[in-house]
Amino acid sequence: MTTNLPVLPLSLIIEAVKAALNEDLGRQGDITSAATIPPDARAAAAFGARKAGVLAGLPIVDGAFRAVDPSIRFSPLLRDGNRVAAGAVIARVEGNARAILAAERVALNYLCHLSGIATATTALVDRVKHTKAKILDTRKTTPGLRAFEKYAVRCGGGVNHRFGLYDAVLIKDNHIAVAGGVARAIRAARAAVGAGVKVEVEVGNLGQLAEAMTEGPDIVMFDNMPLDEMREAVRIVAGRAVTEASGNVTLETVAAIADTGVDTISSGWITHSAPALDIGLDVVV
Amino acid sequence: MTTNLPVLPLSLIIEAVKAALNEDLGRQGDITSAATIPPDARAAAAFGARKAGVLAGLPIVDGAFRAVDPSIRFSPLLRDGNRVAAGAVIARVEGNARAILAAERVALNYLCHLSGIATATTALVDRVKHTKAKILDTRKTTPGLRAFEKYAVRCGGGVNHRFGLYDAVLIKDNHIAVAGGVARAIRAARAAVGAGVKVEVEVGNLGQLAEAMTEGPDIVMFDNMPLDEMREAVRIVAGRAVTEASGNVTLETVAAIADTGVDTISSGWITHSAPALDIGLDVVV
Amino acid sequence: MTTNLPVLPLSLIIEAVKAALNEDLGRQGDITSAATIPPDARAAAAFGARKAGVLAGLPIVDGAFRAVDPSIRFSPLLRDGNRVAAGAVIARVEGNARAILAAERVALNYLCHLSGIATATTALVDRVKHTKAKILDTRKTTPGLRAFEKYAVRCGGGVNHRFGLYDAVLIKDNHIAVAGGVARAIRAARAAVGAGVKVEVEVGNLGQLAEAMTEGPDIVMFDNMPLDEMREAVRIVAGRAVTEASGNVTLETVAAIADTGVDTISSGWITHSAPALDIGLDVVV
Amino acid sequence: MTTNLPVLPLSLIIEAVKAALNEDLGRQGDITSAATIPPDARAAAAFGARKAGVLAGLPIVDGAFRAVDPSIRFSPLLRDGNRVAAGAVIARVEGNARAILAAERVALNYLCHLSGIATATTALVDRVKHTKAKILDTRKTTPGLRAFEKYAVRCGGGVNHRFGLYDAVLIKDNHIAVAGGVARAIRAARAAVGAGVKVEVEVGNLGQLAEAMTEGPDIVMFDNMPLDEMREAVRIVAGRAVTEASGNVTLETVAAIADTGVDTISSGWITHSAPALDIGLDVVV
Amino acid sequence: MTTNLPVLPLSLIIEAVKAALNEDLGRQGDITSAATIPPDARAAAAFGARKAGVLAGLPIVDGAFRAVDPSIRFSPLLRDGNRVAAGAVIARVEGNARAILAAERVALNYLCHLSGIATATTALVDRVKHTKAKILDTRKTTPGLRAFEKYAVRCGGGVNHRFGLYDAVLIKDNHIAVAGGVARAIRAARAAVGAGVKVEVEVGNLGQLAEAMTEGPDIVMFDNMPLDEMREAVRIVAGRAVTEASGNVTLETVAAIADTGVDTISSGWITHSAPALDIGLDVVV
Amino acid sequence: MTTNLPVLPLSLIIEAVKAALNEDLGRQGDITSAATIPPDARAAAAFGARKAGVLAGLPIVDGAFRAVDPSIRFSPLLRDGNRVAAGAVIARVEGNARAILAAERVALNYLCHLSGIATATTALVDRVKHTKAKILDTRKTTPGLRAFEKYAVRCGGGVNHRFGLYDAVLIKDNHIAVAGGVARAIRAARAAVGAGVKVEVEVGNLGQLAEAMTEGPDIVMFDNMPLDEMREAVRIVAGRAVTEASGNVTLETVAAIADTGVDTISSGWITHSAPALDIGLDVVV
Repeated sequence: MTTNLPVLPLSLIIEAVKAALNEDLGRQGDITSAATIPPDARAAAAFGARKAGVLAGLPIVDGAFRAVDPSIRFSPLLRDGNRVAAGAVIARVEGNARAILAAERVALNYLCHLSGIATATTALVDRVKHTKAKILDTRKTTPGLRAFEKYAVRCGGGVNHRFGLYDAVLIKDNHIAVAGGVARAIRAARAAVGAGVKVEVEVGNLGQLAEAMTEGPDIVMFDNMPLDEMREAVRIVAGRAVTEASGNVTLETVAAIADTGVDTISSGWITHSAPALDIGLDVVV
Repeated sequence: MTTNLPVLPLSLIIEAVKAALNEDLGRQGDITSAATIPPDARAAAAFGARKAGVLAGLPIVDGAFRAVDPSIRFSPLLRDGNRVAAGAVIARVEGNARAILAAERVALNYLCHLSGIATATTALVDRVKHTKAKILDTRKTTPGLRAFEKYAVRCGGGVNHRFGLYDAVLIKDNHIAVAGGVARAIRAARAAVGAGVKVEVEVGNLGQLAEAMTEGPDIVMFDNMPLDEMREAVRIVAGRAVTEASGNVTLETVAAIADTGVDTISSGWITHSAPALDIGLDVVV
Repeated sequence: MTTNLPVLPLSLIIEAVKAALNEDLGRQGDITSAATIPPDARAAAAFGARKAGVLAGLPIVDGAFRAVDPSIRFSPLLRDGNRVAAGAVIARVEGNARAILAAERVALNYLCHLSGIATATTALVDRVKHTKAKILDTRKTTPGLRAFEKYAVRCGGGVNHRFGLYDAVLIKDNHIAVAGGVARAIRAARAAVGAGVKVEVEVGNLGQLAEAMTEGPDIVMFDNMPLDEMREAVRIVAGRAVTEASGNVTLETVAAIADTGVDTISSGWITHSAPALDIGLDVVV
Repeated sequence: MTTNLPVLPLSLIIEAVKAALNEDLGRQGDITSAATIPPDARAAAAFGARKAGVLAGLPIVDGAFRAVDPSIRFSPLLRDGNRVAAGAVIARVEGNARAILAAERVALNYLCHLSGIATATTALVDRVKHTKAKILDTRKTTPGLRAFEKYAVRCGGGVNHRFGLYDAVLIKDNHIAVAGGVARAIRAARAAVGAGVKVEVEVGNLGQLAEAMTEGPDIVMFDNMPLDEMREAVRIVAGRAVTEASGNVTLETVAAIADTGVDTISSGWITHSAPALDIGLDVVV
Repeated sequence: MTTNLPVLPLSLIIEAVKAALNEDLGRQGDITSAATIPPDARAAAAFGARKAGVLAGLPIVDGAFRAVDPSIRFSPLLRDGNRVAAGAVIARVEGNARAILAAERVALNYLCHLSGIATATTALVDRVKHTKAKILDTRKTTPGLRAFEKYAVRCGGGVNHRFGLYDAVLIKDNHIAVAGGVARAIRAARAAVGAGVKVEVEVGNLGQLAEAMTEGPDIVMFDNMPLDEMREAVRIVAGRAVTEASGNVTLETVAAIADTGVDTISSGWITHSAPALDIGLDVVV
Repeated sequence: MTTNLPVLPLSLIIEAVKAALNEDLGRQGDITSAATIPPDARAAAAFGARKAGVLAGLPIVDGAFRAVDPSIRFSPLLRDGNRVAAGAVIARVEGNARAILAAERVALNYLCHLSGIATATTALVDRVKHTKAKILDTRKTTPGLRAFEKYAVRCGGGVNHRFGLYDAVLIKDNHIAVAGGVARAIRAARAAVGAGVKVEVEVGNLGQLAEAMTEGPDIVMFDNMPLDEMREAVRIVAGRAVTEASGNVTLETVAAIADTGVDTISSGWITHSAPALDIGLDVVV
């Protein structure tokens, strides 16, 4: 699950940890450590998984420690995209004690949140492994964290859908209604965007699908379609467009959806509702 | 659940929705709507709860629409802290169609996420209603969203723990180890901070508790203590400090923990793992 | 040339004019006007074209005046994408004299620069009108102004290529060399990105083209190819991919390039070297 | 042309390249390189001039590489202000391949744009070399790039006019009209600003000049004056103020303007319409 | 003292009050008012001077209230630059009670600080009124507040020295030492900056002055010169440059310094050590 | 006075010096040094106290030099919180001459301002040394500098009051009036905030005090109370709450106030009106 991960732009990591550290340290800093820990005390600590899962976010953990004190040594034993067993050590960190404690919660909050998303993604991916279907994310992400969450989906073996309203066309009901039909909406989109942008259209039934296919969309999304109808829809498309299933995707339903033959299955749950992976930092001051 | 909610600083809301809109719109904007929806088309839409829950985040929804187009009219029928039934309409919005669609996902991502936290909090609060125990949050929040998530906890009937490392002293194992004992750590903290800052200490057993109580801490936290021991700990404190239970707090365990007589119970789960509340926006272009 | 223009995100305009005004006003403000113009003096002014061209940037002009003083009334007589004759009035503005003078240069600097790009784009578009070829922009834009400059290209009748390294794959020599051949590079890209992202490949000769076509790229770019070879390349592609001509595109050469039958022709000149359109603001204090 | 160049504040460079990199990398980063180039691949490359010109912007190029990866080694062979021949190598760069490709376009966009301005400035400077006249820039700069563009003018042998509305007084028609005459406007300005600020006044004819000279302005600007009249104006001023010619300054006219004896000649063309200097980066992965 | 005040750029005020409000409200907001004051309660209040002085900062007070709640009505009875008697009402404010209390301290902190500077400036100005000497400020300002503090100096009847290292040349000992003498330093400066920038030189004795005058500096500063020597220096300059006295300027010494005939006297004390003017806000909830 | 100083968050220092340097350098940089000092010249300099006092701000001085040029070597001989004698050397700095001069004024402005506050605080602390009273600061701080000024108060031996409206409850007249009495206001506050937040109430006389004490506030502030009444108030509280004296605190009155037996005495003067400590930088280029 570790091949071909995208590279998070460094400035994204730096800005993110800076904001999170500001949030936790305020203008007063860590008043407990300032009172109880000498300025020069050193500490070592280990990140340990309390539950099994898939990792995502280690470069951000690294960035959090660097932001507080560039002399801290952070040494990961595993990498993003790796599965981790319950009880396993993920990484070690060593350096100034106050600095490690100042960054601890920020580091963990990112790591647990993103690894939770990677773990949830892998849970879906594992269930559709017997098919060609890929698991996609959506725009249902936590505000401000989309790039990181979509990266976590990749760490979990999923594939990214569009990043925003800006980088792909996705024509939905509302657009179709205003544009005066599926075909006209697709034509309007083609005319407006360059050849470098893909055009996807959402269809709710086989009638809409037939009309849509006359305009050769790049991708068709089957929105909340019954499985039988979806199977028929896949047959109709017959490889002329990429197919995507959407709606009611759960750990229980995903395998059956994949069995319809769709190319991709998109899930909002993996980003908006995945529980955090339980990871702790055991500090040895 | 709606009394005495704190007021989110306006600048916090403005900055947050601006960042989230930038994330979704990029530099190109909504290329689908630009291609298929006329600049002057108008739309009306309704926010509807697909599942029952407790609301949090309506002022942010309002802010998201305002940021895109100040002439949009957003009319909430319910307020933050209100319970909402499955199927109920939460709010209506009316205005320029492109603008409503541009803000839609940002508005929903905040509302579903924060209402999920409020709903989870209420689930715990409901289970301890027969006791005096209050439900507290922790610093295990999503990076960048702490102020909003702690607000959502309040909407759900919970109470806020410290906001960061800066606004209260919380002495843990590591601090105690370095400071040379619980009592010395508390004394060091008292000496360092002003009279306006509370001092809380974490204890793992009755021995530590006894030593801690000699220094009169404002709050004692019982960390992962067995219920019997916790009951005894509450008896020992005898009202001389506020008591807090921490660790292994779930929907299943929370009532029994409250029955030990503790004043407060803190839960990381309500912020780091609460599933989003399912809310949709039905647009009528 | 005015249909289907994209909508510049409002926050982009606001940030841009704020930065430009800060640059011009510094911390002291307009010291000449403060000394010579009474605080309540009013002025009216007209934007006039000194040369013929195509307009782009009027919403930014509007934003500049609003940023300085929301009570200024800006009334455009023409719209972005319109051709303007030498001597024609483009817009009128009326309000506080100091405020109009404070925003004047920022407004003109945007309008002249972007209209220069639109005008240059139209010059190319006009020369290929007898063919199906569309004029594309590149990433050779002025740092910080890419979104505006790509918008100006649209105003001039051009079409946008990718906005950055992030929203489309463009495989060049270097990628091919490292990946071990055109075909392998295309396969690696397809595997790494989702179905929503287009894959374009640059080829320098017919051999590379043949190899590339075995992998079905979405777009092939002919880089600095002689016209005869390009004509043959278009014949080989035969509609199985979008074709793009690149390199040595000038007012003199563009028609002949279009005559080869390529679908699109990309030009860096329209963004990095287009002279500003001469527009002035005649103020009547 | 290399003596006495001003020093660009480091923070200006850092902010500028950060913004430009964000623009090009977005939140997803370089998806082509991520897919086709291994994380640890190294590359070397050379910046080469395709056309002759004058260089400006090398410290920004350096900053762009540093911002992406501080371990990249950038080694300039020439310096800002140097003339470069067509075909000459300007600088070499060596380091991580993905990082070099990520910064390539940002580096080139700055270097080509600013070197274009330096080259245009030198073209004017060369034509007035037989006189004492200096070439000045104006406030007709690209929004957001003024400090860099004025630095490029210096690299090309020009001199900087005021940086904004804030650092010098320049009294124009409008100010004169409101203030009630040239003399009153100059007096008002003198009264309002400290002794450290110079007062310049624009005059359109010899009558205005005579009135202006009664108040001893530091600088007088002859706005679009016929050459004969300008020669007479220089004679009238007789060294009591610095003289500046403005309007209709081109490669063709500049020598004749300088021959009138003016001290300085200001040109908007060198910043708003100079074509980019053609510089490329040849990468050897 | 109210004529010809410069206009503070609006964006400067907006940024400043936003930062100050963030500092005071944090992410939690005003927790006392949220607990004790109903959301819709209204209040009226009056700004009253507890001591006599000169006002500066009312537009910032206005901005602070607007930033918290644009519907607050702020009505100044006096203006910046006006003298205010002890006990006099300066302005009234009326609106939402929570909002007024949220902005109160920020508004007062600006108003008391800046009015303190204006009052101190006027104290010096009053003492030199019998001469032509003007009171100048310096760069010894509070970090982040220079533009406001220099504006306050103007409100107090003083004149602004350069705003930073960027807008005027001031040659001191160190520069002279490195450049190899006063004359060479002045020549180097003249060669490096445009005609729009004034050149000032600091001299410590009559020998340095004589050498400096051979190069015709715009301004000469007499640094910590005995009064007799300064009188002689003024005689030597004889109007060929603006003269400035610097060093040991106090309420006690300033009149005697002015009596030497210098044109200007610069004081760091008015910005770095002026006590705040005592102004209070009496709220009637 | 040097024990247990809080740690200023590094990002706070970095942001602060960056803003202050921008303010001083503008976009043009130090034009005097650029003209007169060679790019590679080196300099050494010493910070010397011209008056005796207490130091605060050395880490910010360090940060200012680092921000301009990380290779500068800054070597403090004393530390924040140390007393310094008139004439003593505080620190030395060595490195690039232009860089040292560029940071000089920013460094001094912070150091003189904050050391002035520390010195003023110590002056009060020294006068109450014979009692148990501690000197507190207030929210009457310079906008934007609160965290630094409160740190300086700590350096001077004082203790910090709340940092803003967000981190402690302070119930004043207005809150009491609206809430319907002292007791009700305290109860409302207790109900609204968590156990981690202290509740302070301001009382103006013994009647209000009696009512307040029925609700067990954490802290009671005696606002402008006559000394006899304050002594009685201390007797009534009898250790059940922390006591604070406020109003009319000067160098002359502070000892008598402390003699009443109050626990703490808060002073706005130490932050809003303390004169800067006179410190200079003697440069040896």
